[in-house]
Amino acid sequence: MRKIEHIGIAVKDLDLSCDLYEKLLNTTCYKREEVASEGVRTAFFQTGANKIELLSASHQDSPIAKFLEKKGEGIHHIAFDVADILLEMERLKKEGFVLLNEQPKLGADNKLVCFLHPKGTNGVLVELCQEIKAL
Amino acid sequence: MRKIEHIGIAVKDLDLSCDLYEKLLNTTCYKREEVASEGVRTAFFQTGANKIELLSASHQDSPIAKFLEKKGEGIHHIAFDVADILLEMERLKKEGFVLLNEQPKLGADNKLVCFLHPKGTNGVLVELCQEIKAL
Repeated sequence: MRKIEHIGIAVKDLDLSCDLYEKLLNTTCYKREEVASEGVRTAFFQTGANKIELLSASHQDSPIAKFLEKKGEGIHHIAFDVADILLEMERLKKEGFVLLNEQPKLGADNKLVCFLHPKGTNGVLVELCQEIKAL
Repeated sequence: MRKIEHIGIAVKDLDLSCDLYEKLLNTTCYKREEVASEGVRTAFFQTGANKIELLSASHQDSPIAKFLEKKGEGIHHIAFDVADILLEMERLKKEGFVLLNEQPKLGADNKLVCFLHPKGTNGVLVELCQEIKAL
C-alpha cells in the first residue's frame, strides 16, 4: 500500500459527469477508456498525485449498473498502488481480509487489480493495483 | 483544488477500525482527535501524500451517527486541499455548486473547511479544506 492511486466514482451519465467534474476539479479529463470485460466506461482526472476515475455502466448487467441500482451515484472504491500485487494479496489474506478475486485481473489504465470484500473493510470497496510495466 | 487531502470513512467502533486499518494500510494511526462541535472522533493514517480519516460519532445526534444509521459504514467524504478556501468557494458557487456552509468553519486537523452538497456532485460529499498556518 504505497499510496492512493485513484478514487472511483459511479455515475449514471459519463458525459454529463465529465463536464461536472471538470468544473469541480478545475481541470480537464485527460483520458477515457472502456473496459469491456467489466462492462464499464471510465474517465480520468488528475488531482495532485492521485486520479479521480468516473465509472459508468456500458451494459445493464455490469457491476456498476448493479451498484447504481442499489446505492445510487457516489464513491464506488478506493484504489491503492502496490509494488507487488501478489505479495500484498498474500499479506492481506494472512491478516484476515477477503479477496474478491484470487488471481490479479486486468483493470483499466494498464493495471493488474484485485478487490477486497467490503464487509471486511468497514464497507469500503478497496482495490489493489499494480502498474504493468513494459519489459 | 490542489490535491486530495484526505478521504473520510465513517465507522461504528473507532478502536476496532483503527486496528483494522493499521493492518490494511500496513502503517500505524499517527493521530486521534475529537471535534466536539461536529460530534465526531477521528483517527488519521498517512498513505503516500494523502490521509485516511476514520470518523465515528461521539453522540447520537452527530452527522456521522445519522450517516451510519442511513447508509451504514463506508466512505463518507473526499476532502480537497485548497490554497484559498474563500476564493474556491466563490469559484464553485459561480459554477453552480451548492455550499453546505456559506462561511468556512473549523474542522479537524487544524483546517478551515467547507462542504459541497452531494446532490450537485454525483452523490459525493466533497470537502474543501485549507490549512490554518500560524503567523
